[in-house]
Amino acid sequence: MSPFPDRIVATYRLSVPEADAESRALAIATEQSVEMPLDAIDDPHVRSEIVARVVQVRAAGDAFEADIAISTQTTGHEPGQLINMVFGNCSLMPEVQLVGLAFPPGFVQGFGGPRFGIAGLRAATGAIDRPLTCTALKPQGSPLAHLVHLARTFALAGLDLVKDDHGLANQAFSPFAQRVPAVQRAVDEANRATGGRTLYAPTLSGAPAALAEQLRIARDCGVRAALVSPMVVGLPVFAELARTAGMPLLAHPAFGGAARIAPVVLFGQLFRLFGADATIFTNYAGRFHYPREVCLAIADAARRPWDGLAATMPVPAGGMTLDRVAEMRADYGDDVMLLIGGNLLEAGARLLERSRAFARAVAG
Amino acid sequence: MSPFPDRIVATYRLSVPEADAESRALAIATEQSVEMPLDAIDDPHVRSEIVARVVQVRAAGDAFEADIAISTQTTGHEPGQLINMVFGNCSLMPEVQLVGLAFPPGFVQGFGGPRFGIAGLRAATGAIDRPLTCTALKPQGSPLAHLVHLARTFALAGLDLVKDDHGLANQAFSPFAQRVPAVQRAVDEANRATGGRTLYAPTLSGAPAALAEQLRIARDCGVRAALVSPMVVGLPVFAELARTAGMPLLAHPAFGGAARIAPVVLFGQLFRLFGADATIFTNYAGRFHYPREVCLAIADAARRPWDGLAATMPVPAGGMTLDRVAEMRADYGDDVMLLIGGNLLEAGARLLERSRAFARAVAG
Repeated sequence: MSPFPDRIVATYRLSVPEADAESRALAIATEQSVEMPLDAIDDPHVRSEIVARVVQVRAAGDAFEADIAISTQTTGHEPGQLINMVFGNCSLMPEVQLVGLAFPPGFVQGFGGPRFGIAGLRAATGAIDRPLTCTALKPQGSPLAHLVHLARTFALAGLDLVKDDHGLANQAFSPFAQRVPAVQRAVDEANRATGGRTLYAPTLSGAPAALAEQLRIARDCGVRAALVSPMVVGLPVFAELARTAGMPLLAHPAFGGAARIAPVVLFGQLFRLFGADATIFTNYAGRFHYPREVCLAIADAARRPWDGLAATMPVPAGGMTLDRVAEMRADYGDDVMLLIGGNLLEAGARLLERSRAFARAVAG
Repeated sequence: MSPFPDRIVATYRLSVPEADAESRALAIATEQSVEMPLDAIDDPHVRSEIVARVVQVRAAGDAFEADIAISTQTTGHEPGQLINMVFGNCSLMPEVQLVGLAFPPGFVQGFGGPRFGIAGLRAATGAIDRPLTCTALKPQGSPLAHLVHLARTFALAGLDLVKDDHGLANQAFSPFAQRVPAVQRAVDEANRATGGRTLYAPTLSGAPAALAEQLRIARDCGVRAALVSPMVVGLPVFAELARTAGMPLLAHPAFGGAARIAPVVLFGQLFRLFGADATIFTNYAGRFHYPREVCLAIADAARRPWDGLAATMPVPAGGMTLDRVAEMRADYGDDVMLLIGGNLLEAGARLLERSRAFARAVAG
């Protein structure tokens, strides 16, 4: 929590020589607020209330960390402008990373956070006291009948959530308006057969008009969750979707590494702030290479008490396999959604059996 | 240009040991297309048409470059999905940078590019055979009367374009609906007094509904250009604005985080592809630290012939000063817009005089 009632404390890691650390911190405070020479500002109100302030500069390993207090007024309490004020121009400085954000009491509530969160996902799936299971429909380019077959099989196996691969969008080979109703129907039929409550989360993508049309199609055919890549559609768009979609949103991290923001801040804090009910991130020792402590920190930021915001479900992913279920439960506890994609599909003709084994592994 | 009629060639810089270069290139080809083990894909159509292919891996300094051919089908010809396919998941790999994009003939025309471009900006301002001049209203937090005073002064001095500071959004201290009509009125009055044609470009920001409302307000009061940060509002949103705004858009690089996408690709190519009529980037030896050759490459990518797309006006910026005008003309030629902000404001009471000197410097 920020110690200032009207200032956000943003922490930047500065990979600069010691002699430059203080002056770079001052330069960032200017860059991230008034963006002009301080000497040319006469207005005492601007100087005292709008210009960002350096709170502290300290050594941190082989670099430095600077805490900078940024006026909440400058954010307009809008997601895009908040990003602009904490990491707009600084994102263009290779030697600067955003590694921490602390907000004053009450500030985050204006953004709303998750509308469903962990509790909402548990209520929707009926999975109350264990990790949730999730898998993905892939590869893109497959005939619709194949995707429908996969979805039916996963639902029959009792997995909690079946999402589109984030590469499935609205391509000519897989138009949203055909794919989504057909997959939802297959999941509905399987649910009726098993008495289960598998959710299907299609990818919402594109510009605002396309997103609105996709949301309408999804609602009309009974879809109850969706997958969105906040960095691809834009953070303000994602926040608006969270306010209006009326269903849980899974945030996908695609294009998230293009800004040099610490993963815990982007995928843990900011995605939660803007309304992610679940946040997918690349777990350690998979196809991606975040360190274990970074992954645990993301999960912690997603779930810990935060000024009244609902908790976001962490979803470690990216090359996970069935034989890591026990290890992931040990790492993350039960408030987690385990996402295994390709490793199930590798079972080929034994897909139903391996998917059932995944469901059983978290029930035990 | 891509040598394949239905494939984009994306070039990635891989900071990996030589022994891993080929296997990492293969892994990226999978990651950026089907995102699952190739052995688990039976469908021959998916294997031949959808899976991305490694074209070449070569040494490049102390790293490697891999050319990977990505199916145009997978992009759905939509800006967000294009980004997702060329740098969605790979953006999460610190050892991978996107450094080049080549598209097949005709592909880029589907995105439209700049609707006005260099020619449109020259027509709107009447500045035909010289660099354009641009400055910014700042600091944010100033009373409206001060911003109006600045705008009037800049227009009286004959600068071609006055933009909002990109930090000016829709904050309580400066609501868009009050600020923009008042500033436009002052610019209109000055234009009538001088016979000039100064444009005012306010910042459009926020989620889609807010953007639409701001655009309506801007049009209603006669605004003829706008400033947008594509990475803040979202690239698909920016592309939609370019299609629908009916006025030139200046793209601001905030949140561009271009450490992982080469600046030339993001600010030169992609912003142009998605419709930027002008692209602001941080010039060398200012407050930011891009090398000179990177800056010249951005300008070249913005302006060079590109499969029928209009040319984007390059706008080197970020701490530029009046005494660098000659140097910038020598660097960039006359098809450039020179943006000087704080250095004009430092003139204080002599603002009109220094702004006139800026206008004269490019007229000479």
